[in-house]
Amino acid sequence: MVVATTQSQDIQELISSITDALHKEHLTTVARQINLLKPAQLLKIFERLSHQRRAIVYRLLDKDLALRVFEGLSPVLQSDLVHALQEHDTTDLFNQLAPDDRVWLLDELPATVASRLLRGLDDDEREETSTLLGYPADSIGRRMSPQFVTLRPWHTAAEGLDRVQRRLDTVENVYYLPVIDSGRRVVGAVSLRQLLGADDAQLVETLMEPTMTAEVSEDEEVVARRTARRGQFAVSIVDHEERLVGIFTLDDAVRILEFEESEDVSRQGGVEPLRRPYLSTPVSRLVRSRFTWLLVLAIGATLTVQVMAVFEETLEAVSVLALFVPLLIGIGGNTGNQAATTVTRALALDDIQPRDILRVFTRELRTGFMLGVALGALGFLIAWAFFALNVGVVIGLTLLAICTVAACVGGVMPTIASAIRVDPAVFSNPFISTFVDATGLIIYFVIARAILQI
Amino acid sequence: MVVATTQSQDIQELISSITDALHKEHLTTVARQINLLKPAQLLKIFERLSHQRRAIVYRLLDKDLALRVFEGLSPVLQSDLVHALQEHDTTDLFNQLAPDDRVWLLDELPATVASRLLRGLDDDEREETSTLLGYPADSIGRRMSPQFVTLRPWHTAAEGLDRVQRRLDTVENVYYLPVIDSGRRVVGAVSLRQLLGADDAQLVETLMEPTMTAEVSEDEEVVARRTARRGQFAVSIVDHEERLVGIFTLDDAVRILEFEESEDVSRQGGVEPLRRPYLSTPVSRLVRSRFTWLLVLAIGATLTVQVMAVFEETLEAVSVLALFVPLLIGIGGNTGNQAATTVTRALALDDIQPRDILRVFTRELRTGFMLGVALGALGFLIAWAFFALNVGVVIGLTLLAICTVAACVGGVMPTIASAIRVDPAVFSNPFISTFVDATGLIIYFVIARAILQI
Repeated sequence: MVVATTQSQDIQELISSITDALHKEHLTTVARQINLLKPAQLLKIFERLSHQRRAIVYRLLDKDLALRVFEGLSPVLQSDLVHALQEHDTTDLFNQLAPDDRVWLLDELPATVASRLLRGLDDDEREETSTLLGYPADSIGRRMSPQFVTLRPWHTAAEGLDRVQRRLDTVENVYYLPVIDSGRRVVGAVSLRQLLGADDAQLVETLMEPTMTAEVSEDEEVVARRTARRGQFAVSIVDHEERLVGIFTLDDAVRILEFEESEDVSRQGGVEPLRRPYLSTPVSRLVRSRFTWLLVLAIGATLTVQVMAVFEETLEAVSVLALFVPLLIGIGGNTGNQAATTVTRALALDDIQPRDILRVFTRELRTGFMLGVALGALGFLIAWAFFALNVGVVIGLTLLAICTVAACVGGVMPTIASAIRVDPAVFSNPFISTFVDATGLIIYFVIARAILQI
Repeated sequence: MVVATTQSQDIQELISSITDALHKEHLTTVARQINLLKPAQLLKIFERLSHQRRAIVYRLLDKDLALRVFEGLSPVLQSDLVHALQEHDTTDLFNQLAPDDRVWLLDELPATVASRLLRGLDDDEREETSTLLGYPADSIGRRMSPQFVTLRPWHTAAEGLDRVQRRLDTVENVYYLPVIDSGRRVVGAVSLRQLLGADDAQLVETLMEPTMTAEVSEDEEVVARRTARRGQFAVSIVDHEERLVGIFTLDDAVRILEFEESEDVSRQGGVEPLRRPYLSTPVSRLVRSRFTWLLVLAIGATLTVQVMAVFEETLEAVSVLALFVPLLIGIGGNTGNQAATTVTRALALDDIQPRDILRVFTRELRTGFMLGVALGALGFLIAWAFFALNVGVVIGLTLLAICTVAACVGGVMPTIASAIRVDPAVFSNPFISTFVDATGLIIYFVIARAILQI
C-alpha cells in the first residue's frame, strides 16, 4: 500500500507540473518531460487528464511511445483520442493495432470514422478485421485473435518448434498451439513449454492434451468467465462445424470481465456505466448516467404515495403507526437488496441458471422467514416496551411478513430477468427497494387494521 | 448462449444420474461414469453437489483426475474436501500442489490441520511454502510463485534457452523470464518468445525490456488489479531492497480479482460474502451471512422512528405530509446509492484516491444539485396539481435538498472509508440508505414547518 501511494503521489505531481507547463504553453518542456516516462506512468496520467489536454499531450509523444500508450488505453478513451487527432496520425495508429484490438476500437467509433479507417488498411489486414466484424455484437468472434500457429497430430516436436519460429513475427500468441485434423477440427492443444520439453522426434499426437473450445457465436462474457475460472491461458474458438477460426487469450478475457463487472456493479446501483475514469467524466455526463434511472424509480415510488393515501384513515386513527413507516420499509428494502445481491452474483458466476428458479425461491423463502422471525421478535419486544402490546404485535408480524416477501422478491426477480435474457442487474437494488416499499406498506396496514381492529 | 445452455443441461442430467446412483448405492456405476468425464465437467458437478456427496464422489475418482479436479476447486471447497477425506489422501494431494496454491488452501484450513499437512511435506517444499506463509496476510508475497527461471544481462539467447530447458520440469511458468544483476536486482525481463526469435549469440541485455515490479508486502488486490489492467502476463515481485523473490502471473491475478469482486459486490449489498456456490450453501449460512448486517441496519433505522416521533405534532397537524414520507426517503436513498456505487467502483479501479475527496465532494454536490432541480421541479408540479401549492413547494424544495445531500454523502462516505483503510464497500448501499433516510426526514420536516408555518 505504501508503495502504491507513493507512486500515485508522483503521478499527481507529474500531472500538476504538466498542466502547469501546458497553461504557460511551454510545449517543449512538456514534450521533454513526458518522453522520459514509462508507458504505465503515461497511462495513469492520460486517464486523469481532461479531454483536450489528453490530445495535446498525446501529440507531443515520440512515435513508439505513442503507440504503446494508445494500445494500453481503454477503447472508449482511444475513441476520444481518435476524434481529437489528425486523420494522418489516426490511420498510422490504426494500422499498427492487433486485429482484435482494432475491433474493440471500431465498436466505439461512429460508422463514418470506422469505415474511413478500414479503407486505410492494406488488403490482408482489412480482410482479417472485416471477418471479425462479421460476427454478431457481444459474440466471442469479435474478441478472438484470428492469428495463431496450428499443429497437426503427425508433426514431430521439432517440426512444431520450426513452425512456431517461422511465425514469431506475425502471430500475437505462440504459447498456446491448437492441434487440428485434416478437416481443421480441433483435436487438442500443445503448449510451447511441452514442445520445448519434448524429444525432437516425439509426435504432437502423444504430447497434446484436450483443450477448452468455445463456439464463435457464444456470448463474450460467458466465454471470458469460463476461461478465467479455469485459469486457462487460451481457448480455441471454432465455427458451428467445429473448425478452428481463432484463439482467445486470458488477457482479453480479463479485459472483458473488468468491463462487464463495471457494468453489473453500476446497474445494480441504478446507474448507467460511466465507461470513463470518474475524474475525467464531465458532471453533465454523471447527471445523465443517473437521471433516467432516478426518474423511473421516482415514478415507481409514487405508488407508495397512493398506498399511503388509501390507508390515510388508518394512519389518522392510530397516528403512532406513521412513526414506523420509514423503519419497516427500510428493513424490507435491505432484506430485498441482500437477496438480490447474492442471487445476481450467483447468476453472473453461472452458479445458478434460470431453471433453478424454484430452488432459489424455496431457499429465499426459508432464509427470509428465519431473518423475519429474528427481527420480528426483536421488533415486537422493543415496540411493546416503548409503545403498547398490540403495537408490538403489529410491528413483529409485519417484520416477519416483510422480510419473507422481500427475500423472495429479491431472489426471484433477477432469476426471471435472466430467464427472459435481460441483464439481471437491471432489476437493480433501488428497483427492488421501490417495489418492496409499496408491498411492505400494504402488508403493514393490512396487519395493523386486523390486529388493531380499525 | 445456446451452447452454454446445452452444456449446463447435460451437467444437470449428469448430476441427477449421479445422485440417483448414489442413492441406490451403486458406487461402481458412479465411478465408471465420472471417470469418463473431463476435469471441466467434473468441476461444474462438484460445485453443485452437496457437502457429503462431494466427498463420496471424489473418492471414486482416479488419482490423476482427482488431482486435476482438486487443483481447479476454489480454496474454500478444497478445504471442505480436506475435512472429509482421509489423512492419507490429503497428504498426497497437498504434496502435489504448487507452493502458492498450497498457501491459498492453508489460509482456509484450521491451524491444526494446516501444521499437520506442512509436516508431511519434504524439506525443500516445506521451506518454500513456509517462506510464502511468512508474508503478511493479503500481501502479494503469499500469492506469488517462488519458482522461476532468471537470466543475467550477459547471457546469450542460446544460454537463456538452455537454462529454460533445464528447469522445464520444476518451474510453473517459463514464458516470463526476469533478468537480474549481480545483486539480484531486477533490471528487466525477456519473454520466451523473444528468446526463441533471437540469434543464438544475441545478448539478453539487448533483448530485455523494462518490466512491471511490485513489492512483496504490497496488497494482493492492488497488484492483481495493476497486472490485469496492463494486460501483463506476469510481474516480478521484489523485496524492499529490490531483489527478486518471486513472480506473479495473470492467472493468479484473475483468481484474486474474482474473489475480491465477489466480496465488494456482496458488501455493497450489505451481505457477507458466501465464498461457496449459492446452491451448495446451506440456508443457515445464508441467514448468517445476512443477519448481522440486517441487525446493524435495523438498529440504525430506529433513528428514523425517533425523528418521526420528534415531528409527530407536525405530522398530526398536516396529515398529508405523511403520504410523502416513503417517496422522499426512497428517492434520497436511491440518489445516495447511485453516488456511492459510482465512487466505490472508481476507488476499486484506482481511478480516484482518498486525497481526491474534495474533488469528489464538489462533483457530487453539482451532480446532486442538478438531479435535485430536475426531480424537485417535477415533484413541485405533481404535488401542486394533486394537493396544494404550498405542499408542492415543500415537496419540491425537499427533493432538491435531499438529492444534493444524498449525492454528497454517498460520494464522500466511501472515500473517507478508503482514507482510513476500511473497505469502502462496507459503507454499503443499505448503510447509506439508512443514513440518508434519517437525514432526509429531518430536512423534510424542517422545510415543511418553515413553509407551512406549523
